[in-house]
Amino acid sequence: MIKKFILTLVVFLFVTGITAFAAQQKTDYGKYLNTKNKEKYSMTVLNKVNSPEDVKKLSVKDMDLLANDIREGILNRVNTIGGHLGPDLGIVEATIALHYVFDSPKDKIVYDVSHQVYPHKMLTGRKHGFIDDSRLQEITGYSNPKESVHDHFVIGHTSTSVSLATGMAKARDVKGEKYNVIALIGDGSLSGGEAYEGFNNAAMLDSNIIIIVNDNEMSIAPNEGGLYKNLAELRQTKGQAQNNVFKAIGFEYYYLEEGNNTEKLIEIFKKVKDTNKPTVVHIHTLKGKGYTPAETDKETYHWTLPGFLDKKSAAAEVETYNSITKDYLLAKKQAKEPVVAITAATPGVFGFTPDFREKMGENYTDVGIAEEHAIAYASGLATNGAKPVLALMSSFVQRTYDQMSQDLALNNSPATILIYWGGISNADMTHLCTFDISLISNIPNIVYLAPTNKEEYLAMLDWSYNQKEHPVFIRVPAGDIVSTGEKDTTDYSQLNKYKLVEKGQKVAIIAAGNFFALGKQVKEELKKQLGIDATLINPRYLTGVDKELLEELKKDHSVVITLEDGEINGGFGEKVTRYYGNSSMKVLNFGSKKEFTDRVPLEELYQRYHLTKELIVEDIKNILD
Amino acid sequence: MIKKFILTLVVFLFVTGITAFAAQQKTDYGKYLNTKNKEKYSMTVLNKVNSPEDVKKLSVKDMDLLANDIREGILNRVNTIGGHLGPDLGIVEATIALHYVFDSPKDKIVYDVSHQVYPHKMLTGRKHGFIDDSRLQEITGYSNPKESVHDHFVIGHTSTSVSLATGMAKARDVKGEKYNVIALIGDGSLSGGEAYEGFNNAAMLDSNIIIIVNDNEMSIAPNEGGLYKNLAELRQTKGQAQNNVFKAIGFEYYYLEEGNNTEKLIEIFKKVKDTNKPTVVHIHTLKGKGYTPAETDKETYHWTLPGFLDKKSAAAEVETYNSITKDYLLAKKQAKEPVVAITAATPGVFGFTPDFREKMGENYTDVGIAEEHAIAYASGLATNGAKPVLALMSSFVQRTYDQMSQDLALNNSPATILIYWGGISNADMTHLCTFDISLISNIPNIVYLAPTNKEEYLAMLDWSYNQKEHPVFIRVPAGDIVSTGEKDTTDYSQLNKYKLVEKGQKVAIIAAGNFFALGKQVKEELKKQLGIDATLINPRYLTGVDKELLEELKKDHSVVITLEDGEINGGFGEKVTRYYGNSSMKVLNFGSKKEFTDRVPLEELYQRYHLTKELIVEDIKNILD
Repeated sequence: MIKKFILTLVVFLFVTGITAFAAQQKTDYGKYLNTKNKEKYSMTVLNKVNSPEDVKKLSVKDMDLLANDIREGILNRVNTIGGHLGPDLGIVEATIALHYVFDSPKDKIVYDVSHQVYPHKMLTGRKHGFIDDSRLQEITGYSNPKESVHDHFVIGHTSTSVSLATGMAKARDVKGEKYNVIALIGDGSLSGGEAYEGFNNAAMLDSNIIIIVNDNEMSIAPNEGGLYKNLAELRQTKGQAQNNVFKAIGFEYYYLEEGNNTEKLIEIFKKVKDTNKPTVVHIHTLKGKGYTPAETDKETYHWTLPGFLDKKSAAAEVETYNSITKDYLLAKKQAKEPVVAITAATPGVFGFTPDFREKMGENYTDVGIAEEHAIAYASGLATNGAKPVLALMSSFVQRTYDQMSQDLALNNSPATILIYWGGISNADMTHLCTFDISLISNIPNIVYLAPTNKEEYLAMLDWSYNQKEHPVFIRVPAGDIVSTGEKDTTDYSQLNKYKLVEKGQKVAIIAAGNFFALGKQVKEELKKQLGIDATLINPRYLTGVDKELLEELKKDHSVVITLEDGEINGGFGEKVTRYYGNSSMKVLNFGSKKEFTDRVPLEELYQRYHLTKELIVEDIKNILD
Repeated sequence: MIKKFILTLVVFLFVTGITAFAAQQKTDYGKYLNTKNKEKYSMTVLNKVNSPEDVKKLSVKDMDLLANDIREGILNRVNTIGGHLGPDLGIVEATIALHYVFDSPKDKIVYDVSHQVYPHKMLTGRKHGFIDDSRLQEITGYSNPKESVHDHFVIGHTSTSVSLATGMAKARDVKGEKYNVIALIGDGSLSGGEAYEGFNNAAMLDSNIIIIVNDNEMSIAPNEGGLYKNLAELRQTKGQAQNNVFKAIGFEYYYLEEGNNTEKLIEIFKKVKDTNKPTVVHIHTLKGKGYTPAETDKETYHWTLPGFLDKKSAAAEVETYNSITKDYLLAKKQAKEPVVAITAATPGVFGFTPDFREKMGENYTDVGIAEEHAIAYASGLATNGAKPVLALMSSFVQRTYDQMSQDLALNNSPATILIYWGGISNADMTHLCTFDISLISNIPNIVYLAPTNKEEYLAMLDWSYNQKEHPVFIRVPAGDIVSTGEKDTTDYSQLNKYKLVEKGQKVAIIAAGNFFALGKQVKEELKKQLGIDATLINPRYLTGVDKELLEELKKDHSVVITLEDGEINGGFGEKVTRYYGNSSMKVLNFGSKKEFTDRVPLEELYQRYHLTKELIVEDIKNILD
């Protein structure tokens, strides 16, 4: 859940802060903790632990000191470079107990989402990524086989661990091997359909698989129904409730109320070790444990920017794409329209604060981590006359291709889907947001719009909200608000009508969405370097070409370039290139390559992909006659 | 589950058989039925029923006669034009009872997969699509709002009904309306993750939603665990079992053992009508009811080709792409290799017969309708040293984009995924197989191969099976085996190396997979019409371009054309076009448009998309100097 403008800040803070931090590496993070066994920052026990073997030598008392050391390491890392806080603070004791009882890497532990993998990393030779301020960036925030033999997958999206572990267990069985395969899932991930498919199939294994359900009471959606209701019932009855979804589908089931008690965790893990049956161990943990603000406000401290330990005054309220979206939705609610704002477990990303959600009342639904349902639900709402507006992060819209195609597009349901954070970024490879254009724009019937400023965005949103013809996706612009000050009165029902912003000649620049500003820069640079008055076009539609305009360009242009903030392969620009395939027009497409990049600085990516005005003009020069 | 070569047969049979059939419209289909109240084919009751209102006037005895009439209509339609048999025969009484008790279209009924929608269609003004042999093709095999106000969605993929219905119910609530929203799900669909996400969220509605779980004992995967174990337990205890997955997640729950008893169905539906709570009605039905062979062999008679009522001698065993795949897998099993063949609920599509599955034993897994799990499971298997070979239909691989990207590609897990039936077809719009290239080929790290003959396919399969570097997808060729008779010794680890089949000049034809034969025809036609010796290339890789070869072509070619059996947008050809964007090479891409087509004859599509040698040569002529 990271985006370039946030990450730029992170990197900035990291780079500028590193010298200062090197001097204060011995900060007493213990003072922030509310746990027992508090000692001055010393890392007494963690200093002795370099591998799971070392954990096995510890007494329970030492393990509790170790838990303290780990929490200080987590605070250090997250406060310095940002990251996941609550999930990691909550799983410390369980991780220690896992490594005490099981024999990783022979026994395989698969961490769901893997944003709760910090304690595991600290126990498996990677503590420098948490306590050595000069090496924090060497270690990613997710599990990664390239870092350690104790990690088995790169994971960053939720609900996958049970399926992956089932595969590992089956491979073990067909090879005739013996060991434990463990999946650790929880913290909201249980609501994803893939998790359910995994549980259903894991239950069919006639052999060892242990699924640890980390129940920290966070369902994200309200605890009123569904699986989370059952988890609550199981907690209330200490695992004795008659209704037990895990038993119902065929698992051996164990419950541990004190999921942050190392001794009891060890006891229960010993009990299930080497079982020959699919087994669920349901542990009740405290998300954010040890750091009071994170225990109290679980949503805010799930993931944080660096510097959270220092009290800061609240930022002044500035207008953002988030805030104008919320204002739009609230106005519809106040006008008593049948608007239904929908999120899938990450309302914070869109600025859908608890206050906003409360104001929206029954006109707001958080479906939990269940993007497939979210799309079909939106289709059902639209079909029955309501006005759904679903907000999804680019990286997570990937979880729902078939629903976009079948439930939504095939039915031409007029739902509005807002795609946030779409674009090239320095994010972890698990959270790239570069694939949404190629994913969405090749599905028939869908209209995918790329606004370039506030007025355009609001006009598109309003058109989408009111029309009844198409499923409409809007790629919400990244970064600060850009305003023209002039109301956009475009009729967006004229599909694929590009906006000719400035008519020039010889070279035409078709610059979509976030990259419209880059397009303007290229135009200026062409004028400066080559004296060319280039044509500048804002395509607005990512899902089709404006044949009339493209045809017109043939008259006095010899080069067309396309700019899009995402993968070129299968994306917007290729459609333009194909249009000109039968002509002598030369076309260059700019965007990102087909690759998974991992925390590569944005500037480096822009260099690599030729996404600066200088490099683009250079490329244009090379093909001009 | 329809493919062009099968459908061509269907259409052929339909066209040739129609005259004969017109004369025998009064065939006594009743003689095939084992139900009580059997009468001579007369349609006594169905003749009186033109809308749900007419159903409400019937006595229970008449409704049972109506059930008989409906079954005869189903037999007539399926025997004449093919279609879903077992699911529809099983749901006849429940459909009658639904329309007797509820008030469609005010009350909304959403049919999951909708391949069990025939009885509903017959009761809602569309019986001519079943009993009037001259009008069978007017009605689709799936629900369709364009046909009737009683249908709310076009549906053909599974597990979506609960989410769609939840959206409809929420729209009702925010608009302050009152009526029943009903989802009918079952017949294997419960294992899909989207269904679970839907149940989880439906349970959170504080209002009316009724989910009818049509439990016909078909889980497709063995009844050993997971949800289907719980369904079995609930059946055995007549709904009284302590383990109850529906109650566990918060539903009111009702069980009906006699799910084909109209009177009891009416009773239970009356009980839940107008409920204000999320409610599950679990009904135990007999799949295929009324036609003994379909009751007995549920898998074979789930969907059938026309003419099934006439006994036919078994077709001679001929070599097919299915049979050589099975032989390959069995050989690995016999060599005691850790092969794991995987399907997601449609083993019949791949010819994975019960006999084959039995021989594969523990080296075969059917995960049920759970494609997301299937991909992640394959990744887990590959990561842990097994050799997964997962078979999926093109239309259903859509259900798993995020898992392909995150679980598989990001981890570069060396699994083999076979994509069947990929290509343009005259299928229903819900089962098009034209999108897989654009879906799969833009994901980093994946290698997607398009073999053009038997030897190439086997060489690719063997390479993929043995390599450890990439997730490899293979688009299994459609139609009859094409054999060169020469073993293919290509080293496929040299990615994106195209095969230059015949070197010519001026025009180069890059013809992928199924369309390689068309490429050869175009070459001949170019020679014939224009005297051009065109270059013919088999690209083999759909995921990248052979820059060296494409560069080479610039020397003595002015036109390149690409042929692919799928959507052009985001597909293979655009990558070639983009490569030539900076040059004077003219490029034409041939494939299907971005559109959902619905049972359009293949010839018509080929005309529309210019996929004949004549039209292609015409297009080439137009751009040649």
